[in-house]
Amino acid sequence: MPVGTAGSVKAVTQPQLKAEIKAQIILGNTYHLYLRPGTGVLEAAGGLHKFMNWQKPILTDSGGYQVFSLAANRKIKEEGVLFQSHIDGSRHLFTPENVMDIQRNIGADIMMAFDECPPYPSEYGYAKKSMELTHRWLDRCFIRFNETPDKYGYIQNLFPIVQGSTYQDLRRQSCEYIASKEAAGNAIGGLSVGEPPEMMYDFAALCAENLPGNKPRYLMGVGTPWNILECIALGIDMFDCVMPTRNGRNGMLFTTQGIINIKNKKWATDFSAIDEGLPCETSRYYSKAYLRHLFVSGEILGLQLASIQNLSFYLWLVGEARNHILAGDFTSWKTGMAEIFKQRL
Amino acid sequence: MPVGTAGSVKAVTQPQLKAEIKAQIILGNTYHLYLRPGTGVLEAAGGLHKFMNWQKPILTDSGGYQVFSLAANRKIKEEGVLFQSHIDGSRHLFTPENVMDIQRNIGADIMMAFDECPPYPSEYGYAKKSMELTHRWLDRCFIRFNETPDKYGYIQNLFPIVQGSTYQDLRRQSCEYIASKEAAGNAIGGLSVGEPPEMMYDFAALCAENLPGNKPRYLMGVGTPWNILECIALGIDMFDCVMPTRNGRNGMLFTTQGIINIKNKKWATDFSAIDEGLPCETSRYYSKAYLRHLFVSGEILGLQLASIQNLSFYLWLVGEARNHILAGDFTSWKTGMAEIFKQRL
Repeated sequence: MPVGTAGSVKAVTQPQLKAEIKAQIILGNTYHLYLRPGTGVLEAAGGLHKFMNWQKPILTDSGGYQVFSLAANRKIKEEGVLFQSHIDGSRHLFTPENVMDIQRNIGADIMMAFDECPPYPSEYGYAKKSMELTHRWLDRCFIRFNETPDKYGYIQNLFPIVQGSTYQDLRRQSCEYIASKEAAGNAIGGLSVGEPPEMMYDFAALCAENLPGNKPRYLMGVGTPWNILECIALGIDMFDCVMPTRNGRNGMLFTTQGIINIKNKKWATDFSAIDEGLPCETSRYYSKAYLRHLFVSGEILGLQLASIQNLSFYLWLVGEARNHILAGDFTSWKTGMAEIFKQRL
Repeated sequence: MPVGTAGSVKAVTQPQLKAEIKAQIILGNTYHLYLRPGTGVLEAAGGLHKFMNWQKPILTDSGGYQVFSLAANRKIKEEGVLFQSHIDGSRHLFTPENVMDIQRNIGADIMMAFDECPPYPSEYGYAKKSMELTHRWLDRCFIRFNETPDKYGYIQNLFPIVQGSTYQDLRRQSCEYIASKEAAGNAIGGLSVGEPPEMMYDFAALCAENLPGNKPRYLMGVGTPWNILECIALGIDMFDCVMPTRNGRNGMLFTTQGIINIKNKKWATDFSAIDEGLPCETSRYYSKAYLRHLFVSGEILGLQLASIQNLSFYLWLVGEARNHILAGDFTSWKTGMAEIFKQRL
């Protein structure tokens, strides 16, 4: 899922998201959208789909993660989290209940449960208490979710989130609790927060094994192309990550040939397409030399083209993964891709 | 002509320039392109058209104006202008001859003569000496132009530039000299550099009268939508201006309903299209409320949409002007448009 934090996948137009990147679903951010433009504006617009003119599905994360990473003076209580806006310092309270209401107002097709995401590393005692709070909040999320109607005439779903930090027993316990909610899909939170990759894979595997295999398993905030293929092998079905857009804006390109720092001198006279291997107009329309020139010259168009390239690559990659799973040769294909991901061109 | 200073119309893709904005020609900048990416890269690419993948005409200004407005430590000599790059301080010399060579290498369909653009106000004595230098440089431009072949297999044209500051006799004299070159088109420089609008109109009129009416007359660096309509009435045929893109990036929108500061609170819940009156997908696809949100949130997409809107408006405006000239009701149409341009919504 391309990340559209504040109702815009950064530097990309909605028609480009559809026609070039071929995104099937994008992610919005409850914390950001609640602060700006606010639920009043979104409700008046008829929801985020209409506000941004995006007809395909939207998943919103619950704001739990951003409250901890962005907001100032946050205070966790049983009721919820008191915090100050990173924009203007204004004071707000997120509770499991109002976070459900906000996501209903945004019009998310997939709403996420309000959780606490403990940092890495966390002490066992803290991780356990935090997980138990997340579970109590989850009960309240489902109560509110079940007593409120779909807001705009289409089905809205609620995905619970597994926590438990880097403790196997807590993760197992959390998976069991999350699965008991019998939601349409389940998410794994609290990974890719600074732990070593091998640890991330181990816990993704543990969670994937302990969540229902007939429903989507969504690993939040992961990751590099290689992270994604490894986690698909472990049973993960959904991902979101800012890496393709953020790294793109810094001049790092993911291509079917390998990774490129487009600002390098070596691309100055390489007039081959940005990426011939992708079914994306932008990737074939412009050359590496031109894109390098845009970055070196500080042109906004460079940010646009790099973002489209990277998102197109990510969407192509997961599409290919699906094709190779269906064809039965996923593992050998993945081994071949590993060689490409090692290429720094 | 949308301005694509460094080989990119800022924040706009080439397919958008064609399909949405319907630009027939764009402008590039010799000074900027010479410094970055440099003529070596452009020549290796096969010219700017191929480098940026833009098949329609390109006009390049000669660098005369930028050498005076951007470069450091410039020193005007009979031979040309010594200057230091605003990017890295490196020393360069522009002469009438090498500026012709550079524009041939860029592959401009319309090359501009190398001139000195005196500031406003200028003393009569300085203005006269400067004009005479520009005329001597013009002779050298044409000598070089005539002894060098078209670079990439299509015709390259050279437009001379009228100077003479705000002195009627100098302007008349310059027009006569410029017209004697019998170029495919003629340009008027040194206006819109700080003089009052009425003075700009007076001198645009004087120059238009004294240049051949059967060839395009190009007023450089003008201007607001209203400036453009006034100058069309005076006989001007071509314009370039950074205003639609630069003002767009600051949140000032030109629309068929009037001028909008999209950052104003009043647009927060206005879900009408940015501009229903334009035949431009972007102007109809997104709402004013959404575009305001993008600006308030600092999203790059806001810069993109505002630039497309403003350029679409400018191209629509001159297209309408042409239609009304052909229909014989230009003057009454222009009077009606004046009411719209006064509207600050």
